[in-house]
This record gives sequence, structure tokens and C-alpha cells, in this order.
Amino acid sequence: MLATMMNVPLLLSSILRHAAGCHGDGEIVSATVEGGLHRYTYGEMASRSRKLANALSRLGLKSGDRVGTLAWNGYRHLELYFGVAGCGLVCHTINPRLFREQIAYIVKHAGDSVLCFDLTFLPIVQEMAAQLKDLKALVALTDAAHMPRSEALPGLLCYETLIAGESDTFDWPHLDENAASGLCYTSGTTGEPKGVLYSHRSSVLHAMSIALPDVFDLSAEDVVCPIVPMFHVNAWGLPFSVPMVGAKLVLPGPHLDGASLHALFESEGVTFTAGVPTVWLGLLDWMDAHACGFSALKRVAIGGSAAAPVMFRRFHDKGVQVRHAWGMTETSPVGLAAALKSKHLALPPEERLALQCKQGRPVFGMEFRIVDQDGREVPHDGKRFGAMLVRGPWVAQGYFNAPQSAAHADYPGWFSTDDVVTMDPDGFVRIVDRTKDMVKSGGEWISSIELENIAMAHPAIMEAAIVARADARWGERPVLVAVLKPNARFTPEDMRAHYESRTSKWCVPDDLVIVDELPHTATGKLSKKTLRRLIEADGAA
Amino acid sequence: MLATMMNVPLLLSSILRHAAGCHGDGEIVSATVEGGLHRYTYGEMASRSRKLANALSRLGLKSGDRVGTLAWNGYRHLELYFGVAGCGLVCHTINPRLFREQIAYIVKHAGDSVLCFDLTFLPIVQEMAAQLKDLKALVALTDAAHMPRSEALPGLLCYETLIAGESDTFDWPHLDENAASGLCYTSGTTGEPKGVLYSHRSSVLHAMSIALPDVFDLSAEDVVCPIVPMFHVNAWGLPFSVPMVGAKLVLPGPHLDGASLHALFESEGVTFTAGVPTVWLGLLDWMDAHACGFSALKRVAIGGSAAAPVMFRRFHDKGVQVRHAWGMTETSPVGLAAALKSKHLALPPEERLALQCKQGRPVFGMEFRIVDQDGREVPHDGKRFGAMLVRGPWVAQGYFNAPQSAAHADYPGWFSTDDVVTMDPDGFVRIVDRTKDMVKSGGEWISSIELENIAMAHPAIMEAAIVARADARWGERPVLVAVLKPNARFTPEDMRAHYESRTSKWCVPDDLVIVDELPHTATGKLSKKTLRRLIEADGAA
Repeated sequence: MLATMMNVPLLLSSILRHAAGCHGDGEIVSATVEGGLHRYTYGEMASRSRKLANALSRLGLKSGDRVGTLAWNGYRHLELYFGVAGCGLVCHTINPRLFREQIAYIVKHAGDSVLCFDLTFLPIVQEMAAQLKDLKALVALTDAAHMPRSEALPGLLCYETLIAGESDTFDWPHLDENAASGLCYTSGTTGEPKGVLYSHRSSVLHAMSIALPDVFDLSAEDVVCPIVPMFHVNAWGLPFSVPMVGAKLVLPGPHLDGASLHALFESEGVTFTAGVPTVWLGLLDWMDAHACGFSALKRVAIGGSAAAPVMFRRFHDKGVQVRHAWGMTETSPVGLAAALKSKHLALPPEERLALQCKQGRPVFGMEFRIVDQDGREVPHDGKRFGAMLVRGPWVAQGYFNAPQSAAHADYPGWFSTDDVVTMDPDGFVRIVDRTKDMVKSGGEWISSIELENIAMAHPAIMEAAIVARADARWGERPVLVAVLKPNARFTPEDMRAHYESRTSKWCVPDDLVIVDELPHTATGKLSKKTLRRLIEADGAA
Repeated sequence: MLATMMNVPLLLSSILRHAAGCHGDGEIVSATVEGGLHRYTYGEMASRSRKLANALSRLGLKSGDRVGTLAWNGYRHLELYFGVAGCGLVCHTINPRLFREQIAYIVKHAGDSVLCFDLTFLPIVQEMAAQLKDLKALVALTDAAHMPRSEALPGLLCYETLIAGESDTFDWPHLDENAASGLCYTSGTTGEPKGVLYSHRSSVLHAMSIALPDVFDLSAEDVVCPIVPMFHVNAWGLPFSVPMVGAKLVLPGPHLDGASLHALFESEGVTFTAGVPTVWLGLLDWMDAHACGFSALKRVAIGGSAAAPVMFRRFHDKGVQVRHAWGMTETSPVGLAAALKSKHLALPPEERLALQCKQGRPVFGMEFRIVDQDGREVPHDGKRFGAMLVRGPWVAQGYFNAPQSAAHADYPGWFSTDDVVTMDPDGFVRIVDRTKDMVKSGGEWISSIELENIAMAHPAIMEAAIVARADARWGERPVLVAVLKPNARFTPEDMRAHYESRTSKWCVPDDLVIVDELPHTATGKLSKKTLRRLIEADGAA
């Protein structure tokens, strides 16, 4: 028997209408590519998104067409999020840090009709000009005064000119909530990038979920600055969740160095921010070097890759609470968040920290299974590990225009995350490693993450990575690759002494390689693939 | 173009599975009808709900059948919420405070197949025995030791005996999320009670919404005690939302007097509670009389009817933050919550209080329109008032087995709330009055709520109500009906002096009637209907 409740779909346009109607004077502050801060309100943002919707329909776009973006976190990108998705098109955010060939592949695979880009990325677009000539429009996200003269891009449109003449009256259509609203490609550690096609329903549910107290805890009292880029899994959903709760939104633009972030946080009174560990390392180091603190920041969410315990302590010493979270492009992204329970409040600080350093416990809506190599459930004892499977209303059931997916094939109805984890009886998950990053020595698994955390706790080490090196006797053995702090000294003997008191003897790395910089992927994660090549070359040399 | 996200429905069984899987040792504490506290965990609750599902299917119930409940807030009632809805049946909560004839009407209209009741309500069930003889089962919510011998109810089943022999293995079916899960009748100030048939989807979305920081702000660090009854709009959704976030749940059973509540809050460390003003008046008065405070309580949600500013102050003085909320049976119920925004934090305390005393601003998902008598939008200026319409995924689009509904007819797609309100530019709604409670004097509307709040601020007044009395010259004039505090004195002259400095002269009540007690409806609200009859009789006397 069906209930008699209203059939009101979950649509991204509802978020926009809510923000404009109930938080019309709520502020959006953007650090711009052109320089300086831009300020306006949710009311103005909604009005310009409606103008954009009219402009897109004038360009001849049809329901389901993709509009690509190469852009930083800024107000025009936000208008694209809502204006494009709101009228039934798909906002396809492209990671500009990918290789040119990958970007060209993605634009083509997605079948983008329009590509909008920040001036920063003009060189990329110019280089790809030949591959973009069939697009309906190329749009520079700037005003007439800043429009570049580009001979390679003869029909280039100016965003401000494009929307200037449009009416700000537009009735957002009553779409099917399962209609596609966004598209984001995973950088893909193996094979070509794969696209995740989000729906209005998945985006709205995820936005509600991340605002919950035990996830990012977002309210209208907050000032939120997403450092995680809007081209990276929708900036973890914050561009949807922040207008939903009516918080002030601060968008950091292109400058993500410590000095720029600290100045922005202080001038705008940011209370909550979110990003990957690499960015926080830069911010914390800059603050320590300049002996300054935070005046408004209360909470930071860290995800993308695991943060070392020392980072929790450094934030804590500055009066900021860290919330570890886990997710993937395929999971919208947030699936786990490390919020304590009432029974944990009385634990000693070190035990609380140990829990908070785990990847977190399932947010409501997401279901997890941990299975061994034979597909049997692994007990939730916090010790035994297995592969993590996930299912939920904001998990992809496949990839865009790619019917075959190994990650969806093994366990029908579930997505295989490629993470090897333990889960404790409270649901807290600890990522032991990525399946392919584990070091298998003498038939036993060694977690690269655990060894990296030990290294990071040494005062001489700035950044550390553990990679497997082929070994005739043991199969594989761990090698530590490290970046040292300025003027620090760290020898193989120091390494062995440091590890021997902190892990089993057979887990101590065999070798140490000191480098000036660790290789990162386009999404800011350590590139273990590049490192393995480096180590092999090093061994061969 | 449809997205490629997983098709995972929003089901109440997902809440149960999440609570059991991630918060298996989370506590549920219930004050029982039989006496004493009962303690168990989410894991045990889920296990017993599965046994109940097996027992219900053994009774021959089919998908969509209704299971009625006459019960306090307790663990067996909670098992019915999840066990009944989870297997595709409908949990029909009945308000035992209604008149017998209304209860009999509701059981018949709902077509209940089974009726489950706490021992408190045995007399009601016995009286209705003749009308209940066609039901598949009558179940006393108790154990064998406490089973009554009732000749009027020969086939009476015992809940504990019913589930004792069942397996705790039960696969919750993969239902349509729009399937009916719950049924609740509005007490109906006019005409017969009307049933609202909730869906899994509406209940899950509402449960997520009320856990948000700007609504009830629920986390796994909380200990939550819903005082609002589980037979009253699903206790405002808390029995779904609390397991969803994994908070400890404290269910108060039958004793809602100040002494019982205070003892329960203190012994269980309750951090958040929710209920109607009448209950809080009892609690606060008892605490003042016994000069005691709260050791753990941080927040209280007040709804059902408007709380006077003095109640906010009394809680505030005890270190408790009050969150005003508004809702109706037809809206699941929560549609408005009075959470401040960042821009309000710097306001003087009195201005902040004035905002917090409003009914609140729209929670995301709920859309509101304020219209004048001609159906035109009233500006959101916080001054001009109109009728409030609402729409959203957890609003009823009609009533169960009642195709005609005046409240849905006037504005297609919208539900007319019967409240007369103002909305300010921030979305804060102030209820001026119920349409039928407004006093129309000389062509001008007088708000009964505003005059009641003024009366409540007088030190001699315990409880106050304003009702309209027919007046030959003015059409209607306001009359104050008041209950005085013990040994207090309050004359018509005191009343006039008190009002004259606080409202326009033409709004000062014409007359004062002192009573020992104000009449309340079965849901604890002031019964203006009874009061109007009283005033007419008084005038006629």
C-alpha cells in the first residue's frame, strides 16, 4: 500500500530556492583569479544562476547535455553547479591538474557540449583547441575587461557577457530526482579515467548527510571554506550542503598556500574548512614559522588520504578539532566520519585520538561489508582485515558510458573500494592499506600506511612514503622514501633505531631513500606508482 | 538522462540495520508501565524486532495491513515501530487520551488488523471489546507474569509470549520507499479525526532533517529523551532519528510529572529532550519548588504550541538552550525550527530571544507560502500576515481513505496549515494565531497568542488563554481566562494596568475569568473550543 505523502522530488534547484528564500542575504565570498575578493549573496547567486540557465538554453543545449568546467573554487563555478544542473543539464567538473591527454580524453568521453574555464587554464584550452572545435561553446569565466585575445580560440565567449542580457526569471523544471546532475572522472590509478554520473537525489541526500553533527556539523552559524577543489568530487558536497544550511560560504580561488589560506580564514572568520593533508601541512608549517594562531576556526575535516596523528595534535594545539572522513569519487564522496560516541568521552586523550585517527564509522545511509579473499564476512573486531565493499543511495552503480566495471562485478549490488580495512565493534574503520600498496613480505601483509605514520612521527621527517621493492627471498620488502625538514639529518641507522621500538622487526624498512619532493597525483595524493618506478630505477642503478 | 547511482530505497529497516550494526551496544532505557527501568541495546532491540516480524507474519498479516498501538514511550512500542513498518505493515499509533468513541472510530476507519496496548489502557480496550471482535489479534504489551485475566477479552495475547518462540532471523524486504509505514490521526478540532499515512521515504528524510544542527542537533554523543508521546506524530520523529545517529535513547513511560522527569533526566544523563509547553511548566515548577538544577541537560525542543518567552528564560537560567519548533501531524511534523544565524550572534540578548521565540525558519526540504485572503503572496517583512501553506517530501497530500480534503483543495500541490503568520526576510515565521482563534474587533484582528504571552509574563499568572466573546458593538472582544499561582491575587484592575503598558488600548481584554484549570485537548493543547463555550455560558449566566 502506497502512502499519501506529497511526491516532491529531491532536486538541486530546491537547495538554491531554499538558500535564496531563507538566506537571501547570506554571504558568498570568493578569492578571484583576476585578483581580490568578490562578495555577493545567495539571493544574487540564485538570480545569476537563473540568468545562466536562460543563456544555456539559448545556446541550444538539451536535457542531459554536459557542460564541462575547468575552474577553481569561486562564485562563477558555483553558479555553474546550480544553473547547469538546475535546468536538467549535467555539470561536468574536470580536474585541471590532470595531464593534457587525460583532459582531452575526458572532454571527449563525456561528450561535453560546452566548456567553461578560469583564465588560469587558458593555456590548457588553447593547447587542446583542435580537439574542442566541435563544442557548441567555449566560455571564459571572466568579464569583458579581462577577456583574453586568443587566436587559437576564435569564438571564445565571455561568461559575464553571455549572461548579462538574460532575464533572471527562470522556472526550474520539475525533474525526475534520478536525473543526472553532475559528472566527475576519477583520476584512475589504472586504465583510463572513469566517470561517475551523480543524480539530483544522490547529491541532495549526500548534502543532508554531510551537514549532520557527526559528519561536518554544518549550521547557519558557520562560515565554511572548502579548500578541497570543486573539481574534486564536488568539493566533498560542500557547495550543496552549505547553501542548504544557510552558512556563509568562502571560496578560496587559486591560492592554496599557507599564507593565503591563513589570511583568508582570518579576514572572513572561517569556522569550518575541509581538505587533504598536503594542504594542511603547508598551512600548519607556515603558521608555525610565523608564530600565529586561528581566531575563528573551530573544526577541520581531513580526507582524501589518511592524516598522521601528529597532524591531529598540531591542529588540536591551535584549538581546532579535526574530523577525519573517508570517501571516493564513486561514493559522492563521504561514507565514513570519525565522530566519537558518548561512551568515548571518558576515555584518556590518547585513546580518543586513536579513534579519531581512524577513517571513521559509517554515516547513515551507507552500508559496509568487510570480506576476506574468499568473500566471507570478516568479524568486526578491529583486528582482522579484509576488502571493503560499500552500498548506498549516493554510491555509483557503474561508470558513465562504460558498462563493464570490475569494481562492481565481484559482489553484485556492491562497490569494491580497493581498500583493505579493519572495522571495530563500534563501526570504526581503519584503512590498513590500498590493496595494491600493501607490502607482502614472506607471505605476511605489511601496511604501508602504518609504517608511514611511524616515519612521520620522527622530528627530522617532513613527508614519508613506503613502497614495496621486489625481493628474491621475501617476495617484497618495504622501502622508506622521505623528504626531510630543512637542515635535518636522518640516516639509515636513525631509521632502524626509530622503527625498531615501534613495530615488529620484520616490518622495519630495508632501505631509505631521501628525496627533495614526493610525487603526487593530480588530486594531491601520493603517487605510489611513480614511487615504485623510482625505487626500481634506484635499485637497478 | 538518468544518472548511474545505486537504486537503494530509503527504508525504516535501514535505520534499524544501521543502529544494530554500528551502535549495537548503544543503550535504550525505558521507564515501564509495570514499574522500574528496563535496559537493553540497539542490538537486542533489532533482534526482538525481527522476532516480532516473524510473529506478525505468523498471525497472517499481509503487506499494508495496519497494526494499532495504544502505548506510552517504551521499548516494546519502539519494537512495534520498526518490526511492523520494516516488514511492510503499517504501524498505526493511536492517542489513548482521545474519547472512547473517537478511538473506536479511528480503529474502525484505519481497518486495524491487530491492536497492541500497554496495561494502562486495558480498561479502554475492555470497553471497546464488542467493536474489536473482528480483529485478528489483541496483544497486551507485557510479559506472562503481568498478564491480566480479562473475561471481556477472551483471546488476548501476551506480547512476550507471542515473540518468545520466534526466530530472530528475518530479512527485511526491499520495499518501495513510497510504501506506507505509519499512520497517525489528527485529533481534529472540527469533524472526525483524519489519518495521515506516512511513507518510509517521508519518515527517513524527516529523521535526517531533524538530526541537523539547526533543528534538534542530534549526535552519538547525545542522550535523548522524547517526552512528546510516541502516539503523537511519531514523537516528532525521534524514535527514527535517535537510532539513526546512534544516541542513547531514554523512553519515559507513563509518568510525565515534574518529579519523575527530573529523576529520569538526572539518573540517565539526558542531554536533549523534546515536548509541549505544558509538560515543561510542570517540570520547571517542580524544580523551582525543590531548588534543583540539571546536571547533564543541554537542550530542549519545544513545540506543539507556542512557548511563552518566560519559559525560554526559565530554561536559560538553568543552563538549557531552548529550540522552538513548529509542525503538524500532516507535516511529519517538523517544518520550522528557530535556530539563529551567524549574523544574529552579535545581537543584544533580548533581540536574540525575540527571534528564538518565533516558530522558526523553514528546515531544508519544506517550502512555505504566506498568502492573503485573495491568495496573493504576502511580503516577507515580519509584519504583514497571511495564511501559511506548506509543501515538501514529508507533507501529506491528503488523508487516509478520505479523498476530499479542504486543506488541500484551495491551493493545489500545497497544504493549508490554518495558521495565520508573518515571515521575516530571514525566513523566521511568527504564528499570529490559528485562523479560528484570532479575535476580530471592529474589523481589526487581535492575536490571542500575543495577549496570552503578555498575561504569562505577570508574576501572579500560572497559565492563560485568550478567547473571543461575541460583542454587539465590536463583533468580538478578547476575554482573559487565567489560572493563578498558589495564593496569588489578580483582579480585573491588575489585568488592565498590566496590559495597558504592553499593548494597544483596544487590544486590552474586556474581561477576566479566573479558573482552577484550563481545558486541554487530548494532545495537550489548550482547547479554545471548550473555553469559548465556557465564556459564552459565563456571559449568559
